[in-house]
Amino acid sequence: MNFALDERLARDTFLVGDFPLCRALLMNDARWPWLILVPIREGIVELADLDEADRAALLGEAAEAADFLKGHMGAEKINIGALGNVVRQFHFHIVARSSGDPNWPGPVWGFGSSQPYEEGEEWTLIEAARRALRVKPPEQ
Amino acid sequence: MNFALDERLARDTFLVGDFPLCRALLMNDARWPWLILVPIREGIVELADLDEADRAALLGEAAEAADFLKGHMGAEKINIGALGNVVRQFHFHIVARSSGDPNWPGPVWGFGSSQPYEEGEEWTLIEAARRALRVKPPEQ
Repeated sequence: MNFALDERLARDTFLVGDFPLCRALLMNDARWPWLILVPIREGIVELADLDEADRAALLGEAAEAADFLKGHMGAEKINIGALGNVVRQFHFHIVARSSGDPNWPGPVWGFGSSQPYEEGEEWTLIEAARRALRVKPPEQ
Repeated sequence: MNFALDERLARDTFLVGDFPLCRALLMNDARWPWLILVPIREGIVELADLDEADRAALLGEAAEAADFLKGHMGAEKINIGALGNVVRQFHFHIVARSSGDPNWPGPVWGFGSSQPYEEGEEWTLIEAARRALRVKPPEQ
């Protein structure tokens, strides 16, 4: 298998670690705690390209990411989605939403410009995610 | 079980039929062929509220709906998502997207106002969906 993370996804995110199926990424946008799961598989564009076992794994890992965002980040609602109109490599968004957030109750997608974390500020979230999720962090 | 479809979902959609798990609806927005799946369960707000078997069923039915939108409607890309910031009853969007559609490559959510189907125009799509999907249509 020759999995390579799409370059735009790599550029816009920080690496959290690898679940059994998916690479977990933190979106570099401080407006919302926002995780992205990318199945470590070749050539997946649509949900329907995953076989049944992988779909189940994807949703299990997404539920775990959502629990983290609700429990640790106190999100009021989780928004999930896979659009991929620009970046075709299948990637699943899991976003923490709360009343009064920058585009509540509208969507995060297509709204304004991302607001990168200030230097080092992302680490609190990345470390909390690594503790909470069954991910293998990248080797140092 | 006392399942009742949220009133706003009922008002904004046409009934296609019931999958084993989900009620399938057609969004009354002619800008995009747009299906919505609602698990016929009480009290589901987040994906994580569904047990493992129901999550698998949801994704199987979503994949079937997506195949229909790709095969029958010639969609270039499928967008899926569950937001629920306004309507809390869990509902899963499956939307046919193509280059040049009204907000390509941006999201369908939060974009402009819905454009209701002209009288009767929705039936072509509803009937095609009933033929293609393993849904039980409503009783006449």
